Amino acid sequence: MRTRAAVAVEAGKPLEIMDVNLDGPRAGEVLVEIKATGICHTDEFTLSGADPEGLFPAILGHEGAGVVVEVGEGVTSLKPGDHVIPLYTPECRECDYCLHPRTNLCQAIRETQGKGVMPDGTSRFSTLDGDPILHYMGCSTFSNHTVLPEIALAKVRPDAPFDKICYIGCGVTTGIGAVINTAKVEIGSRAIVFGLGGIGLNVIQGLRLAGADQIVGVDLNPDKKEMAERFGMTDFVNPSEVEGDLVPYLVNLTKGGADYTFDATGNVQVMRAALESAHKGWGESIIIGVAPAGAEISTRPFQLVTGRVWRGTAFGGARGRTDVPRIVDWYMDGKIEIDPMITHTLKLDDINKGFDLMHAGESIRSVVVY
Amino acid sequence: MRTRAAVAVEAGKPLEIMDVNLDGPRAGEVLVEIKATGICHTDEFTLSGADPEGLFPAILGHEGAGVVVEVGEGVTSLKPGDHVIPLYTPECRECDYCLHPRTNLCQAIRETQGKGVMPDGTSRFSTLDGDPILHYMGCSTFSNHTVLPEIALAKVRPDAPFDKICYIGCGVTTGIGAVINTAKVEIGSRAIVFGLGGIGLNVIQGLRLAGADQIVGVDLNPDKKEMAERFGMTDFVNPSEVEGDLVPYLVNLTKGGADYTFDATGNVQVMRAALESAHKGWGESIIIGVAPAGAEISTRPFQLVTGRVWRGTAFGGARGRTDVPRIVDWYMDGKIEIDPMITHTLKLDDINKGFDLMHAGESIRSVVVY
Repeated sequence: MRTRAAVAVEAGKPLEIMDVNLDGPRAGEVLVEIKATGICHTDEFTLSGADPEGLFPAILGHEGAGVVVEVGEGVTSLKPGDHVIPLYTPECRECDYCLHPRTNLCQAIRETQGKGVMPDGTSRFSTLDGDPILHYMGCSTFSNHTVLPEIALAKVRPDAPFDKICYIGCGVTTGIGAVINTAKVEIGSRAIVFGLGGIGLNVIQGLRLAGADQIVGVDLNPDKKEMAERFGMTDFVNPSEVEGDLVPYLVNLTKGGADYTFDATGNVQVMRAALESAHKGWGESIIIGVAPAGAEISTRPFQLVTGRVWRGTAFGGARGRTDVPRIVDWYMDGKIEIDPMITHTLKLDDINKGFDLMHAGESIRSVVVY
Repeated sequence: MRTRAAVAVEAGKPLEIMDVNLDGPRAGEVLVEIKATGICHTDEFTLSGADPEGLFPAILGHEGAGVVVEVGEGVTSLKPGDHVIPLYTPECRECDYCLHPRTNLCQAIRETQGKGVMPDGTSRFSTLDGDPILHYMGCSTFSNHTVLPEIALAKVRPDAPFDKICYIGCGVTTGIGAVINTAKVEIGSRAIVFGLGGIGLNVIQGLRLAGADQIVGVDLNPDKKEMAERFGMTDFVNPSEVEGDLVPYLVNLTKGGADYTFDATGNVQVMRAALESAHKGWGESIIIGVAPAGAEISTRPFQLVTGRVWRGTAFGGARGRTDVPRIVDWYMDGKIEIDPMITHTLKLDDINKGFDLMHAGESIRSVVVY
């Protein structure tokens, strides 16, 4: 079939909107009509050329929602008409990782996914001239139609709006999951969130959901304060306004250090500050942000010997097929908010505007509606 | 009273054996006759002058066992004749730390302990001329008699031999506790232990006790192999005999990385290797060793984002008054071994020989018997 897509032809260039060919689903695969997709920093990271594993030409996008159109041979858990959210971290429920209680990093299709192809080693996308175009993070939601493995689709309730729940495909789940699945924050905790962008705001609402008593937000941009407060932030700290070192200031503000700290910046210096502002004895610091290639985190081992714990999280520690439908329910039940974070809605033809808004810091999330 | 002690007169000099004055126990304090004491690397670290917090003159030693001679006003949990192990990490059972489920770092007397004095700010030790001598780690077990706060003494069964259980006051508990309290190793785990000295061997027997399936020991000294095997090591790796990088070798040996890795070397490069040889998705690395002043650990944050956890431990995460008597029971019941690790027994007058043996790498543990 033919479908319309925004193609990343090469690194550093705007996406090109064009018709592409899409082969139908093979065994274990599902054809999905994407109804909406968010534009995430990770798409930008790859498109910019900074991602050392980026491959071109490819169809980017990994934060979508849509409807099943056709299922391939052997697919049993989905049928045409089902509403789904694509999962860049799949959940096969069979590999060593899925069967381990402490990780969500299903490895079933990792190798082919990293190469931009389906599990059989080929791409379903091609140009109208027949040249192959690669998949991206196993999702390629910047195409109106896409093919995914069955294990990379979460089936969600049919009454949830695509243009909001697409955000659950990455940012919402990453932020809330970091709190609930990775940190396992307890009621009454004190927490610090570094970076109040699209992930940090979701960490904040995750903390509110988990019953945290104190939720400190740290950002150099004072414009972030209002929105973060709306999501539950109790204290705002602008490092540029703190006299002296940031860490002792935050330790004092949280009465000895936070029970949990979260880095949502990707800056390794901030990651260190996050660890060191965690409470002696039991404070845990969770790295969410993706650092530039080659960057390293450092600290004195004494920080760990005196009880701090350093962790990271990917996709919020969520097992997508199991956890994503639950987060959609939370949204529909009003337990979490998404609408105020979707600051811009665009058509596919205007998708490059979404990247411009991100670069200008004017959007929290831009969503493309097909 | 007068007692006999080995005094650290100044950094870098041998200990001087002499008679000293010891004041009786004040309110909340206990006078203990030390029957035996181990000589630990931490004593050496301070005596050498490398410890930036080292104070002199002081009576070192923190790994002892003895008998209560006299109790001060208000002491209710101990009476003369009770057998005890001094605790450099006390357990007041009242401070925020003791009441927190995730730490053993009781802070009740931390400040005065760090200054080499009792909680009232004064020392009980002095020279025969009346010049004060400082306490060390709140213990000073290199004196035949010493005074400690009640909260810094674990009461243990009277039939356990002092010259063996003194080692539970530091090395045994640190190693076994790192496995049981900090890592919480599960039956069937794979583990790697870096450094097969007095702590590493106890990590190994802790792993055996916890039911680990694979226990890899890493040490540059091949002479360590035999003893480590006796305590449960299943695989020995000498990094000097590994072709290529150590980390991929260990990851391969443990079928993808170890579930738990332990640094018992204090070398920050080894700490990094320990983290990076932990299994993707769920591997945890525990820092036990004390690094040189100013040394820092580093890694790429990707190591944590893909599921590894970096922790530290002090005194094996043990709450001394609660856990130390239990470990003494394990020894008496034959669940753990201590005797083969006590390679040398000395009289107090020969204590400096114990340090020489440590420097020469000839001892695992030297114990002074009074």
